[in-house]
Amino acid sequence: MQAGKPILYSYFRSSCSWRVRIALALKGIDHEMITINLIKDGGQQFSKEFQALNPMKQVPVLKIDGITIGQSLAIIEYLEETRPTPRLLPQDPKKRASVRMISDLIASGIQPVQNLSILEQVGQEKQLTWAQNVITSGFTALEQILQSTAGRCCVGDEVSMADLCLVPQVANAERFKVDLTAYPTISRINKTLLSLEAFQVSHPCRQPDTPAELRA
Amino acid sequence: MQAGKPILYSYFRSSCSWRVRIALALKGIDHEMITINLIKDGGQQFSKEFQALNPMKQVPVLKIDGITIGQSLAIIEYLEETRPTPRLLPQDPKKRASVRMISDLIASGIQPVQNLSILEQVGQEKQLTWAQNVITSGFTALEQILQSTAGRCCVGDEVSMADLCLVPQVANAERFKVDLTAYPTISRINKTLLSLEAFQVSHPCRQPDTPAELRA
Repeated sequence: MQAGKPILYSYFRSSCSWRVRIALALKGIDHEMITINLIKDGGQQFSKEFQALNPMKQVPVLKIDGITIGQSLAIIEYLEETRPTPRLLPQDPKKRASVRMISDLIASGIQPVQNLSILEQVGQEKQLTWAQNVITSGFTALEQILQSTAGRCCVGDEVSMADLCLVPQVANAERFKVDLTAYPTISRINKTLLSLEAFQVSHPCRQPDTPAELRA
Repeated sequence: MQAGKPILYSYFRSSCSWRVRIALALKGIDHEMITINLIKDGGQQFSKEFQALNPMKQVPVLKIDGITIGQSLAIIEYLEETRPTPRLLPQDPKKRASVRMISDLIASGIQPVQNLSILEQVGQEKQLTWAQNVITSGFTALEQILQSTAGRCCVGDEVSMADLCLVPQVANAERFKVDLTAYPTISRINKTLLSLEAFQVSHPCRQPDTPAELRA
């Protein structure tokens, strides 16, 4: 099957989309982007066309090499296996385990419990507290784990998949007004990573679907 | 660092612990088990000793080769990299992507939103409906995805990490009285897998900490 340029389905504010945008930027993978507005028209992810692409009705989705992949970490692992340079997983299996543990802590333990569709079910008056509790509890654990894994980045000094999860989650934390002073290691790593170009070009404030008032 | 037998920290009913128990059984990895009762004493996962082991206060945790790994999929990926036989990820990167997509769909998209600590926050009167909605929505997507990936198992005919996620999630669905007739492919694969020894010895009804009234 001949495939053209990879196509990323993305929403500027989706933290899971941002993870993949960083991976594509770091690995320098030329691609097209189709934006899916999760709010407009009752949510474009609920359209028939998009559901056929991803029955989970979530972004990101990546069409690449003739296949369609949903779930951000599955996408990043596929990119890593097929476009290994620069690597987003260390060579040492024990360090790879740390990277995946931190990635999963964020991708399974924090993000899904504070995402848009869950917060809608929680109800407007409780949303902020709910999200803050989830993130605070996850970040408390993460801050402790980072004491034994972090260098300049989450695991040692090289950017890894864990960092691709960290930065978008910190942005969510800021959006939900979580006080980050209790997490000096998370804050330090986040700051370091945000100075890198791949994290900047992929940032929610610089996407084609970023509303004018949120642009930077 | 010299390491003895791997130690799995597990709770009989934890679906994430079950995933790892299946992996250990399939790969024939000799190990010890320490049971953590998530309910007794207000939750043994909140003890100082356990928090030092896993700041996320969750099972499973695996101590192996001198390291401590939390997060079930990170554990399984580590086992796969260090004990590759029998394989739990296919050789073809595209099929690996399908396995990881299905695993993440369950491990990020379904399980975390219906786990014990979230249901406690949702409140007793809404718990059942909440869990049913989450599982129904995830299974509807999964049933559709399996149409293009499944053989005898979730991806083709070989047992993979996706199957290790599927069976425990179906058990949760049954516990929450989800009607499974709408998911014939999920039900068929689940039945096939439950006939395998590794899925049976690891089953919640056959663990050292299974209460007498739930034993089978």
